[in-house]
Amino acid sequence: MGKFIVIGERISTTAPSMNKALTERDPEPIIKRAKEQIAAGADYIDVNIGPAESDGEDRMKWAVQLIQSECDNIPLALDTSNAKAIEAGISVYNRSKGKPIVNSADAGDRIGYIDLAAANDAICIALCSKGVVAADNDERMAFCQEMLEKGLGLGMEAEDLWFDPLFLVIKGMQDKQMDVLEAIRMISDMGLNTTGGLSNNSNGMPKELRQIFDSNLLAMAIMNGFTSAIVNPNDKRLMETVRVTNIIRNEVLYADSCLDDLK
Amino acid sequence: MGKFIVIGERISTTAPSMNKALTERDPEPIIKRAKEQIAAGADYIDVNIGPAESDGEDRMKWAVQLIQSECDNIPLALDTSNAKAIEAGISVYNRSKGKPIVNSADAGDRIGYIDLAAANDAICIALCSKGVVAADNDERMAFCQEMLEKGLGLGMEAEDLWFDPLFLVIKGMQDKQMDVLEAIRMISDMGLNTTGGLSNNSNGMPKELRQIFDSNLLAMAIMNGFTSAIVNPNDKRLMETVRVTNIIRNEVLYADSCLDDLK
Repeated sequence: MGKFIVIGERISTTAPSMNKALTERDPEPIIKRAKEQIAAGADYIDVNIGPAESDGEDRMKWAVQLIQSECDNIPLALDTSNAKAIEAGISVYNRSKGKPIVNSADAGDRIGYIDLAAANDAICIALCSKGVVAADNDERMAFCQEMLEKGLGLGMEAEDLWFDPLFLVIKGMQDKQMDVLEAIRMISDMGLNTTGGLSNNSNGMPKELRQIFDSNLLAMAIMNGFTSAIVNPNDKRLMETVRVTNIIRNEVLYADSCLDDLK
Repeated sequence: MGKFIVIGERISTTAPSMNKALTERDPEPIIKRAKEQIAAGADYIDVNIGPAESDGEDRMKWAVQLIQSECDNIPLALDTSNAKAIEAGISVYNRSKGKPIVNSADAGDRIGYIDLAAANDAICIALCSKGVVAADNDERMAFCQEMLEKGLGLGMEAEDLWFDPLFLVIKGMQDKQMDVLEAIRMISDMGLNTTGGLSNNSNGMPKELRQIFDSNLLAMAIMNGFTSAIVNPNDKRLMETVRVTNIIRNEVLYADSCLDDLK
């Protein structure tokens, strides 16, 4: 399955400082946060501009050009419910280091994002849901199959659909998390790529428990074939798991200094 | 697969203080270390008395009675290459909290430990090796099958054979560790129990890396069906992984306080 791919999640309007910087077109905080994530090992930077209904196209173009010009054309995930803003972002996107990621389609109202990705030769994150979270793996895999067929029908490569089985909240749905891990195995056994956010797993837990739960879930998911995640690359414990599992899986050569630069 | 089983490894002649206490029949250091391990969550205590060629029988009897009488009859793993010492230990062993574990048989010179376990209604750790470490999973699984058939032929329950696929040293055999994890999955898919020591994995690494590598390997192994391990239960990070994976696997109910007592 290759080296695990890290998509840095820290440029997002859910963070007040980032929302302000995106709204005011203030480059410094955004460049700083992009560079911090890349230094920690992010392979892609997610750019979540929020719904951005009024100025989404301009906002996404500005952010894409800013981050790529300052960060050696790092590949990006374009993340918004405003489809036109994603198209605008792709129109100025530099592909020299990799295709853009469209974040995200689902099997329901957002199925059109697969068309958008196909039309623009982009990777597409495909949430295995349809309005509500899948009730079980039959439903989860049916949504996956539906999106796969749509993508293939539009000429996409299967490897460009990154299926997100949607981790559940331990505090509330503890008895269903193993289903999600099993879904990752099933999708992996089909030879397909997977991705997902980890923070839902530990939502509502005391702060000191969150990275312990998330990093252990990540190691388990990687064992089942999980190929990428949307995470905070500046979370030391998570990145330790990414690096150590890369080594255990023999995708990266071991060195005594392998974790030295993590802070 | 149930709650993960922790076998505490800290009473061993490889530790100079334990060697001295076992040799001099000094109870205090042994009781202290047994209680520390139990407090941290050990389900079994391993009692490694070394080869103990001269006084093995007396030494094992003394240790078994000491630890069980002071620790509410905690179940034990009896660990020595002196078979008579294991039999002597079993002769005074109290089964009220669980069968003794014979540690360990292999498919080579130590195959007789399966006879010993069968004759004494004990659990038997069965190393998937025959003199040398298995070259690949064909060989590993052949050794497993050989020991399984022997145990069943002697009237043992399959669940009383705990197969140890023998983790390899990352520094030197990095490219083979995934085979061991795959063997765990194969043995688990046969409905069988597994166990093993983790420290070989990180042998030779800088101290600060060892628990990071071992705990991540443990989470990966547990995802593949690993049912127990012989570890230091006073290693906080390892026990965090044991507890968190028990919760993610829905074998233990989540609580905000779930890690509070780990030091």
